[in-house]
Order: sequence, then C-alpha cells, then structure tokens
Amino acid sequence: MYTLYYAPGSANLVVHLALLEIGAPYELKRIDIEKGEQRSAAYLAINPHGVVPTLVIDGQPHGEAAALALLLAERHPDVALAPASGSAQRADCLQWMFYLANSLQPLFRQWFYPNDHLAEAGETIQQNARAGIEKCWSHIDAHLAAHGPYLLGERFSVADLYALMLMRWSRNMPKPATEWPHVAALAVRLKARPSWPRMCAEEGLVEWA
Amino acid sequence: MYTLYYAPGSANLVVHLALLEIGAPYELKRIDIEKGEQRSAAYLAINPHGVVPTLVIDGQPHGEAAALALLLAERHPDVALAPASGSAQRADCLQWMFYLANSLQPLFRQWFYPNDHLAEAGETIQQNARAGIEKCWSHIDAHLAAHGPYLLGERFSVADLYALMLMRWSRNMPKPATEWPHVAALAVRLKARPSWPRMCAEEGLVEWA
Repeated sequence: MYTLYYAPGSANLVVHLALLEIGAPYELKRIDIEKGEQRSAAYLAINPHGVVPTLVIDGQPHGEAAALALLLAERHPDVALAPASGSAQRADCLQWMFYLANSLQPLFRQWFYPNDHLAEAGETIQQNARAGIEKCWSHIDAHLAAHGPYLLGERFSVADLYALMLMRWSRNMPKPATEWPHVAALAVRLKARPSWPRMCAEEGLVEWA
Repeated sequence: MYTLYYAPGSANLVVHLALLEIGAPYELKRIDIEKGEQRSAAYLAINPHGVVPTLVIDGQPHGEAAALALLLAERHPDVALAPASGSAQRADCLQWMFYLANSLQPLFRQWFYPNDHLAEAGETIQQNARAGIEKCWSHIDAHLAAHGPYLLGERFSVADLYALMLMRWSRNMPKPATEWPHVAALAVRLKARPSWPRMCAEEGLVEWA
C-alpha cells in the first residue's frame, strides 16, 4: 500500500499515473497549497522541502517525483514501466528521465515563478525560460519523429508519463508542447490510456483533461 | 570498454569518478570547449545537445551525466556503487540523484552563465542562483549531520560522487560548499579515495584537487 501526498496537477501527476499503470493499491492525501499546508509542521516532518509529492512506502516517506516514478517501475518489474537494469534500453530510459529532470522541468519553475526574489527581472527570466522550454520541445519532437512514437521507440515507459506531465504544464504558454506535431501525437496516445482519465478524475483536473 | 568524451572539470567528472571506482577499462577523449569542438558535426552526431559528457557503451553514445553515473552503477553491481533495485536504500539513492539533478545542478547553469540572452538581468539572476545553491548546501549539511557521513548514511554511493562534483563547482563562489562543516567532511572523505587524485591527474585539474 502506497500513500501519495498531492496537489492537483503538481509534480505528483507522474507518480499518480505510475501508480495507476502499475495497478498497486494506494491512498491519496491532498495538500492544500493555497492554505499553506505544505509548510505545516506535520507535512515538513515527512517532506523537509515542503513540496509535493511525497510517497509513503512501507511507512517511509520519500520525495522527488522523477525518482519516485522510476522507483515504482523498479518495484513492479512485472508491469515493465521501465526497461530492466542491464537491458539495452535502460540507458535510454535513464537518459530521458534525467534530461527531463535536469534540462526541462527546472525551466518551468522559472516560467511559473519568475518573481521569486527577482521582481525587477521577472519578465526577462520568463522569456528566457520560454525559449529554453521551446528548445526542449523541439529536441523531443525531432527525437520522436526519428525514433518514436514513444521516447523509447516502440516501447511505452515511465519517461513518457514524465513528459506528459510537463506537456500539461505548458498548456497555457504562448506555444504549448502540443504545437509540436510528434509531441502532440504522443500526448494523444498517452491520454488514451485508462490511467489518464482516472488520474484527472481523482485529482479533479478539468483543464487539458 | 567505455569511451568518455570530457572537458576538464565539467559534468563528465562524476562519470569519470564512477568509471574509476568500478575499475572498468575506458578511454578518454577530450573535447576542447574553447575551440568549440562540442559544436563540431562529428561531436553533434553523438551528442545532439553539444555538451559533455558523452559515454560510448558497446558502440552506442549516451548522454546525461547523472544517468550515466547511475547506469554504470547498475552495469557493475559487484562494485555496489548504488543500492540494488528493490533494496531498502534504493529510494534514498534515486531521491538524492534526482534532487541534485533537478534542484541543485541547474542553479549552477544560472550562476556560471547568467548572461545567456539576459545581459540586463545577469547580476540579479546570479544572486538568485547563489541563494538557491546555498539553500541546497544547508539542506545537504543538515541531512549529513543527522544521517551521514555519506548521503546514504554509512554507505558510500554514486550520489556522493555527484555531490562532490557539484561541491567542486562551487569552489570560487562567495560561500563554497565546504563552508558547511558536514559537507566539508564528506568532501575530505571522498577526496581520500584513490579515484579522486587519479581523475584530477587524468583531466589535468589543479584547482581544488
């Protein structure tokens, strides 16, 4: 049994999708960000950064969305959400997971919160983040055109779920991810899986659902 | 046999250390960043982002430093550079690898290259990056104080090598990582391993060596 602390549409989304794909029993606990519940003493005790998600596994809390998604894939090898250690595609899967975590996702922080400590530079930072994000979608689109339809070719994986979360985050940007045709096709394919509507229903997502 | 494309002291450092810890045979190929070799057609063919490192494994080029370090740990389970999939500490290891990749390392990009497209906001961005980096060292220091001496407690792992590379990157900052006592103690411990001086000699590093 897993317990996932979440805020609708936040970084928990990829972990939630992975739980649904795996079919493992889990319990959801909502953190109300607007009420500041992520900074409550109770929540900081299980997540010292005060962010979602937290996944409680065998009574132990763990953080970092991409790590949790990869960990769930490893803990349920029968579902094959990621190529096994030692397999030929393992490198590609890890490479995509860290590319998304290191090159793409951090730019969304700048896009959504450009004014953290930086009121005077907010607009510039946001435009820079936008340029960086669009460069990433172009890279992913070119990769999918040549080697798709999934990030690992014919094989669906947890890396696609991670990309799907980030695509959703771009939905209100001047040029959302779905403006890139092969990225859009991947989104359609992934949203057709039963995990997507169920996750949206459970998190109460209506936009881009 | 592995082939590592590197630039002295760049993100290849963690991969290079992992190769030395594993004891696998490898060949080094230097990319001269000042001469722009990372943008040569030959290099872009194996690394479309034009960045180091690239690790060639069984003839196939792969990128993303943290992914490569984790992959090497998985490919050489006898050396136990990372807890095995399914083990209790696996979650902690993945969590640290993604924390460093997602929360800490991207800030160094802003610290070192604040003026990319953003000449007018460079100083502000740099100060913001500095604050973020220092917050990360404080978090890591508190963790090591409570649960050290390594990131995974008594167990040395690839996550420590990744942290060590980032500590070195901070060496000329106003407050380098080693100003935090438990982080400094971890650096001393890691630099005492045979892999460190050998890596420094092979990459030609003299500062913070």
